[in-house]
Amino acid sequence: MKAAVLQGKRSLEIKEIPDPGSPGPNYLRVKIISVGICGSDVHYYTEGRIGDFVVKNPMILGHEACGSVEEIGKGVHGFQIGDLVALEPGVPCNSCQHCFTGMYNLCKKMRFWATPPVDGALTEYVLHPASFTYKLPDDLDPSVGPLIEPLSVAVHAARKTRVETGDIVFVNGSGTVGCLVSVVSKMAGAHKVISSDNNDNRLELARSMGVDKTINIESENLQSEVFKYTDGMGVNIAFECSGNNKALNELVSTAGPGAKIALIGMGNEHSPLDTVKAMSKELEIYSIFRYANAYKKAISIAGGSGFNITQLVTDRFEIDQVAEAFDYAVSPDSRTCKIFIDL
Amino acid sequence: MKAAVLQGKRSLEIKEIPDPGSPGPNYLRVKIISVGICGSDVHYYTEGRIGDFVVKNPMILGHEACGSVEEIGKGVHGFQIGDLVALEPGVPCNSCQHCFTGMYNLCKKMRFWATPPVDGALTEYVLHPASFTYKLPDDLDPSVGPLIEPLSVAVHAARKTRVETGDIVFVNGSGTVGCLVSVVSKMAGAHKVISSDNNDNRLELARSMGVDKTINIESENLQSEVFKYTDGMGVNIAFECSGNNKALNELVSTAGPGAKIALIGMGNEHSPLDTVKAMSKELEIYSIFRYANAYKKAISIAGGSGFNITQLVTDRFEIDQVAEAFDYAVSPDSRTCKIFIDL
Amino acid sequence: MKAAVLQGKRSLEIKEIPDPGSPGPNYLRVKIISVGICGSDVHYYTEGRIGDFVVKNPMILGHEACGSVEEIGKGVHGFQIGDLVALEPGVPCNSCQHCFTGMYNLCKKMRFWATPPVDGALTEYVLHPASFTYKLPDDLDPSVGPLIEPLSVAVHAARKTRVETGDIVFVNGSGTVGCLVSVVSKMAGAHKVISSDNNDNRLELARSMGVDKTINIESENLQSEVFKYTDGMGVNIAFECSGNNKALNELVSTAGPGAKIALIGMGNEHSPLDTVKAMSKELEIYSIFRYANAYKKAISIAGGSGFNITQLVTDRFEIDQVAEAFDYAVSPDSRTCKIFIDL
Amino acid sequence: MKAAVLQGKRSLEIKEIPDPGSPGPNYLRVKIISVGICGSDVHYYTEGRIGDFVVKNPMILGHEACGSVEEIGKGVHGFQIGDLVALEPGVPCNSCQHCFTGMYNLCKKMRFWATPPVDGALTEYVLHPASFTYKLPDDLDPSVGPLIEPLSVAVHAARKTRVETGDIVFVNGSGTVGCLVSVVSKMAGAHKVISSDNNDNRLELARSMGVDKTINIESENLQSEVFKYTDGMGVNIAFECSGNNKALNELVSTAGPGAKIALIGMGNEHSPLDTVKAMSKELEIYSIFRYANAYKKAISIAGGSGFNITQLVTDRFEIDQVAEAFDYAVSPDSRTCKIFIDL
Repeated sequence: MKAAVLQGKRSLEIKEIPDPGSPGPNYLRVKIISVGICGSDVHYYTEGRIGDFVVKNPMILGHEACGSVEEIGKGVHGFQIGDLVALEPGVPCNSCQHCFTGMYNLCKKMRFWATPPVDGALTEYVLHPASFTYKLPDDLDPSVGPLIEPLSVAVHAARKTRVETGDIVFVNGSGTVGCLVSVVSKMAGAHKVISSDNNDNRLELARSMGVDKTINIESENLQSEVFKYTDGMGVNIAFECSGNNKALNELVSTAGPGAKIALIGMGNEHSPLDTVKAMSKELEIYSIFRYANAYKKAISIAGGSGFNITQLVTDRFEIDQVAEAFDYAVSPDSRTCKIFIDL
Repeated sequence: MKAAVLQGKRSLEIKEIPDPGSPGPNYLRVKIISVGICGSDVHYYTEGRIGDFVVKNPMILGHEACGSVEEIGKGVHGFQIGDLVALEPGVPCNSCQHCFTGMYNLCKKMRFWATPPVDGALTEYVLHPASFTYKLPDDLDPSVGPLIEPLSVAVHAARKTRVETGDIVFVNGSGTVGCLVSVVSKMAGAHKVISSDNNDNRLELARSMGVDKTINIESENLQSEVFKYTDGMGVNIAFECSGNNKALNELVSTAGPGAKIALIGMGNEHSPLDTVKAMSKELEIYSIFRYANAYKKAISIAGGSGFNITQLVTDRFEIDQVAEAFDYAVSPDSRTCKIFIDL
Repeated sequence: MKAAVLQGKRSLEIKEIPDPGSPGPNYLRVKIISVGICGSDVHYYTEGRIGDFVVKNPMILGHEACGSVEEIGKGVHGFQIGDLVALEPGVPCNSCQHCFTGMYNLCKKMRFWATPPVDGALTEYVLHPASFTYKLPDDLDPSVGPLIEPLSVAVHAARKTRVETGDIVFVNGSGTVGCLVSVVSKMAGAHKVISSDNNDNRLELARSMGVDKTINIESENLQSEVFKYTDGMGVNIAFECSGNNKALNELVSTAGPGAKIALIGMGNEHSPLDTVKAMSKELEIYSIFRYANAYKKAISIAGGSGFNITQLVTDRFEIDQVAEAFDYAVSPDSRTCKIFIDL
Repeated sequence: MKAAVLQGKRSLEIKEIPDPGSPGPNYLRVKIISVGICGSDVHYYTEGRIGDFVVKNPMILGHEACGSVEEIGKGVHGFQIGDLVALEPGVPCNSCQHCFTGMYNLCKKMRFWATPPVDGALTEYVLHPASFTYKLPDDLDPSVGPLIEPLSVAVHAARKTRVETGDIVFVNGSGTVGCLVSVVSKMAGAHKVISSDNNDNRLELARSMGVDKTINIESENLQSEVFKYTDGMGVNIAFECSGNNKALNELVSTAGPGAKIALIGMGNEHSPLDTVKAMSKELEIYSIFRYANAYKKAISIAGGSGFNITQLVTDRFEIDQVAEAFDYAVSPDSRTCKIFIDL
């Protein structure tokens, strides 16, 4: 079967690899339908590494995947052949302290797709544990499938910061994750959501997904706009989704007393933190790493939010065009948000 | 000025009482516009007491009130004459341990309208602390005003039980508070809300306010309906809003493992609790007493829920008909939910 | 090898059963050293059932066990042959929603020792997953081993009710679990711990484990003593460890505003709950079911509390006297608290 | 009466000021006994400002005070003339959103002693609200009195980070606040507390207050020592008490997965934050600003910790030597920790 294998920096090829065969007990065999390209995939493509994770051997890319169930292993309940499913890309050890306490995203033995040396999902078939595979409701647009992964990041961040009815939320960066954080915040009852970006297309996307107020950080003054909009109160919860290392102090500035900040976007450099300002408002800063126990909730939100999140999918490529797709992802059009590879 | 004074059991009269005059520092003078009749008002009317609270002297009834600002005391900011306002009926001491820790509803020096010996709001004018008076948005239907009080109970109960996106919620009893708990739960992202009652009119009201599934407890089997609807999982959060002392064990039965139960409806007798069943599911039971810090959030929900909560107001009387209104409240029509007195 | 097998009501025999052999991957073979007798063991002995759990086939009793490591399976790290270990008696499925969210005590596929049809630990050797086996520090008295199980119940209850520095705690019932709840509460910084019982020997035990004030509920008035001792405030947190169905309302009465109640003792009948009183103080009631993620913390407390918890072990029998031990446990001396079986 | 008035930078004089007279309703008149010198007092002395707080007019210094009750205002209960009391130095408005929700430390109208333009406590008599005055137990060493203020900071930080039994805690900086954070952590059941400093006298102080392991950051490698001591796990909770802007990343490095960090020491510059490292461990960072609802708990800990916290008081001066005391505080001996002024 085919797979999109990263051979080295900027070298991505469709290779013929062995079919994984039939699923063992508690596993499913899933035919992959489509896979979203994430910033981390692009980073491995251009740099061959992310921090300590170095691609030393050829590796299949892709971790935002949906597919259909092809074969069902022994002991699996609740699935039928042909079911449309979203696949949680990280499988933890299930027997360490982090797994036992509900924080399996911190498991040191986690095997996460397309994180070296673990192969990813840009391939025709995978075997996956049934307990990390989630049936999508029949009435859900199949294009939502790969978005469940970034939506789970948003769910996890909103849960850590306890977004609730009446909150005033600020989302810095209106890409895929930023827009999905907005959707989750509105779903959780946020009174107002403010989003920022330097790209007007993305701000328009944000508005079409329920954001109440957008700010272009190049043409407007972020801090004064936020304080004007919030009657001088500042926001309750701020999400950093841009990866810019200057953003943390922007969030500290727009936050009201007692506010919570979530760090989702991952930058390369250290972020300066104005501790005196943060302390005088007693801010809480939550760093976010992937998610745990978020997929079911993400699927419930995808179906029930009332917002059409598939608008985020601006470009689709066939698997045979995967190298072209990644080259495009490196220098995309300004209207591009999420790119899918269809299999 | 006029006031509706409870003289004794079943004796409610319109009396002429002294005008309260101008507001002192940090106070507002408010002209009352309308007042909702609550079950506790009716209870004082028929019984002259609720538990240890005994009406020993004539007392003005009513605590669910809205009005318009007539005069503004020194040191008050943020109000203009003519503002439509909701009035939080309990004023705590602001200097005990409960007040200092954010649980002012438990303040032992609380002065709460129409709780003996404190007079209520069924009168033409009141002086009220600005910090317990809340401006209603201009685009809000004024009839929502008195509903902010029971909506605050719902907000408080949902906060204590931490309703969040994806939850399956059960609300036992579909009167005013039950319906408002449903609205708050949907607003907080509940995936499904199930409501029960023995009155089909109320179940219809519940459905028109977003409830996904209703159960008539006289013609249907509550427990089997809940488990059928939840695929055998039971609910995450259950709210008791009926005041029936048998209801607690019904909630214990419909709850899934790890579920939370809120007691809002206040009955007269002890409730049997099946501790073995509760413990085997490790249920948490939260008893609810009024609310604290809920009015602002309630107003935000009233304006932003997308549900027309004024449907709950089924009957309105003029102040001069107040005795008639209370007699009606004692034996209402089956389609009656909330009764308002207009001034 | 020998095992203490419950053949039927009041029929407990030492039987010769097959040796379990060598441990598979991630398992340990443990030689059992001693096992505590718990109320549930005694209940199965006298009644042959607890609620829906019915002993239909012969079953080995015992779930409070410690032992020494005899053989180490593949893939196990951190253990050496001869290590003294406490054994967590319940092994969950590790792949359901409750396991994934840190509440594995609610796992529906839990296999828990001496809960039908799962055999218990009153036998010479067991194979046990390394991840549910905990090394005891070398400086710990080996007699502490079987007490780690009830201590874990106490740890779990204190965590659910968030006992913290400065709290005033009331523990109803001063048997093994009651005394261990007191120890955990003091360790967590409780300012004062009050314990009650109808047995003066147990109250003396409680005092020797750090309890500040004891109340004999037969000769003293519980409620007035608690309020006198707390200057009329009532307690912050109350633990029910007696199993008496009347106790819940006693706890409601002794609780101060905003207090938390934990239900640990499991009675047979429904407990009346004075909801009006509970609501007027906005009490929270947490029902407790076993524990999750508590063993490591329990071991740390056993070693660091400064209290000699082995005083709770009042009687020890050899495995060959196990029937005699259970008969004694049914009608023990008034000075008896915890009974151990040594192997 | 006398007061220590800051006239300008490095100009501190004993002035004769008007006696405040008798207390109004709900106030006490308190004779000041002793006052601790805090780093912020020294900062105002040397710089005349802290950030946006500028000393424009002469101001009395001092906010860590204890005294004895001299006169009792109307409506005050629970005090007797002669009572030894600790005085909470900040009095909030009691009627804003932050006050109502239990976070009165964030009140924008807070009047806090020796924070311009509010006078402090280095004077003979003060009038103070009874609700912010706390009776010290008769068996408490009066020297503990002024330490209740920094101990309240420690209590607040431990509460925000939820220190609990079994935790491994790291405290960076072993001055007064650092040592008190250690005491509170041990009191809350921390399994091990590690403290660091560059001053061996302070590390010795830390050890004498229960710290299990000390690290001199000049002669030892902090990170490797912490990981060696914690078997490679890192710590659960880390407190920054040094005010060094490099310390945040040190804390990030020593933290284990899921750990919490509290920022207590206030530096002058922005702190670099290694967000990638913080995110990969999903750390939570809590900035701490003074305290709320901490005095009662601090007093309970001062009396019940079993550690002699008065060892922290290394130097005492008479009020007439106050200028000398401040000059000493600017360049203290290496064995100096907390300096008291006695009145």
